[in-house]
Amino acid sequence: MTIRISIDCMGGDHGPAVTVAAAVSFVKRTEDVQMILVGQENIIRSELKKLKFDHHSRFPFISIVHASEVVTMEDPLEVALRRKKDSSMRVAINQIKDEQADVCVSAGNTGALMAISRYVLKTLPNVDRPAICSILPNQKNKPTYMLDLGANVDCEPRHLQQFAIMAAALFSAVEGTAMPTVGLLNVGEEDIKGNDVVKKTAQLLRDEHAKGVINFYGNVEGNDIFAGTTDIVVCDGFVGNVTLKAAEGLGRFVKTVLNAEFKRNFITMLGALIARSALKAVGSRLNPSNYNGGSLLGLRGLVIKSHGGADAYSFEWAIQRAYDAAKNGVLEHIASAMNELVAQPVSESVAGAIDVSSETPLGETGTS
Amino acid sequence: MTIRISIDCMGGDHGPAVTVAAAVSFVKRTEDVQMILVGQENIIRSELKKLKFDHHSRFPFISIVHASEVVTMEDPLEVALRRKKDSSMRVAINQIKDEQADVCVSAGNTGALMAISRYVLKTLPNVDRPAICSILPNQKNKPTYMLDLGANVDCEPRHLQQFAIMAAALFSAVEGTAMPTVGLLNVGEEDIKGNDVVKKTAQLLRDEHAKGVINFYGNVEGNDIFAGTTDIVVCDGFVGNVTLKAAEGLGRFVKTVLNAEFKRNFITMLGALIARSALKAVGSRLNPSNYNGGSLLGLRGLVIKSHGGADAYSFEWAIQRAYDAAKNGVLEHIASAMNELVAQPVSESVAGAIDVSSETPLGETGTS
Repeated sequence: MTIRISIDCMGGDHGPAVTVAAAVSFVKRTEDVQMILVGQENIIRSELKKLKFDHHSRFPFISIVHASEVVTMEDPLEVALRRKKDSSMRVAINQIKDEQADVCVSAGNTGALMAISRYVLKTLPNVDRPAICSILPNQKNKPTYMLDLGANVDCEPRHLQQFAIMAAALFSAVEGTAMPTVGLLNVGEEDIKGNDVVKKTAQLLRDEHAKGVINFYGNVEGNDIFAGTTDIVVCDGFVGNVTLKAAEGLGRFVKTVLNAEFKRNFITMLGALIARSALKAVGSRLNPSNYNGGSLLGLRGLVIKSHGGADAYSFEWAIQRAYDAAKNGVLEHIASAMNELVAQPVSESVAGAIDVSSETPLGETGTS
Repeated sequence: MTIRISIDCMGGDHGPAVTVAAAVSFVKRTEDVQMILVGQENIIRSELKKLKFDHHSRFPFISIVHASEVVTMEDPLEVALRRKKDSSMRVAINQIKDEQADVCVSAGNTGALMAISRYVLKTLPNVDRPAICSILPNQKNKPTYMLDLGANVDCEPRHLQQFAIMAAALFSAVEGTAMPTVGLLNVGEEDIKGNDVVKKTAQLLRDEHAKGVINFYGNVEGNDIFAGTTDIVVCDGFVGNVTLKAAEGLGRFVKTVLNAEFKRNFITMLGALIARSALKAVGSRLNPSNYNGGSLLGLRGLVIKSHGGADAYSFEWAIQRAYDAAKNGVLEHIASAMNELVAQPVSESVAGAIDVSSETPLGETGTS
């Protein structure tokens, strides 16, 4: 099965210089892929020429779709959505709607990408709001899937509940784990900890656990993200965004300090030189580039968001993420998980504000 | 001026073995300090003996106040607050109320420490809720003061406004910067970003800035914490707690990976050995122990919270923090800053979100 990936070539801080190079590199090393490069045709063609790809044996696996406009990082949502109807971002997403592509990758403006994706593709049945799910490395040398990372700054319990179910479907499709563990990000492990939204969400997730829909671990704390306590960490987009960016900031800080100290004098430089394989391994294990590519979950189509500042190496990881998602039928998994949520209608107790009382099958978890 | 510090010797994961050792070490190296060790007298005495401090020339600068009970990490708030009236934590805080101590340090249960401090000391005029403010290292090699770190999981704009003013007073008192910059933690820099609470808070802080009360920088993002973009970062206790713990978790993760890679083979071990001064410098610059000691702000007395798992080195940093706070008249600075807030009533434009009713008794806003 050939995976067709549409690339918003004009998005991101570096545009085609990065996106086209990454697409070419990916298509060279991947058999069953067809790339649709969307953007200003002459620029894309000249990038391909620069890369000497126009005579490559894999060249036929790339096609170009022209789009005359570009959504910039500064464009307000209305402009991106209503005025720039021929933007590379919009046209790339249209490829999915028109069934020309299985998945789309963009490094453009997150807000615009979410808004256009939502407008063009619509949300899946039973999804109130799409969310952005990214992968972080953890101490167990496994991935931690975390969402939402910024699409929803205010969440109600049922949104977080939906995020949990979608992320579980994503994780099991991509990682092959039948029932991945789900943790709810909180300020403590105990049930009494946290604000109102989190406490109510925990109750909803306990209900889903009881029904066998998800494998709810319970509350997790900030340190559990990198400890790998659970496969999935659910939080609202405000907390998720701040935490992710704080982690990136701390990572940069550590790197700066390490570099500065190793360059302090001849001896330390020598040590670093001798130990360079170790330092390289550390760098590669913690390199955020290897975790580039957030999935927009809850849409009727697969869209992957790359970091805006991604280089070609990093953007290629986002393409890999897109390829894996399409290959593993992530969309179908999520749609079916959300359908089951419909089939098992939200009990009265859960609908409003939770009052897990008598009729909930798993009454006893409701207490504590 | 001698600073009198009361120490809750029984608090924390390690109790007197850590707290007494840290107090002794501190008193040995600090001239103008008087330590009040609070806890089970026989245990404290035996620790002092173990440390061979009972014949030391600085021994007279330590006194012991017996307390028969201990607040455990598992104690519910009611137990800590209502039942254990002779706990080392309570008695240590009482020392401030009774004007026997200028500042108190405890590594005990955060919730209990906040509740007891609030009950015994009361909040300062015009403070609705106390907050916990900690120091983090940043890339500029300066401290970032961040609050709230867990005392208030739900905040209204006026609470965050108060946190900002208190932190600015703390920062200028301890660091000697007249008008430290204040950043509001958000998911983006633009004014339109964020949830309702953050947007309303930004307006309040802009008003305070216009009045010359604080130096409001604007919104900051997660990465700005470690970049050192502003001196102070304000957020609610949920976001602050999660972010801080995530940073700790990432720090541990990086350390584990570094250690593992350097120990991988003889060559890398040799490199690490040669570069050990660099690694040590990195470790010391990023060592969370050096940043131990969160200030409980907004009380009519100075209370410093140490990490529960602190070792003696780390606990001594919390004592240092306490000493510095008292020495620099932090309490007076904060009280006077909050008094000015009364003197300059909140403008109509923001009154909706606000209602800083001066008559609100400092009672019922539970932190849970």
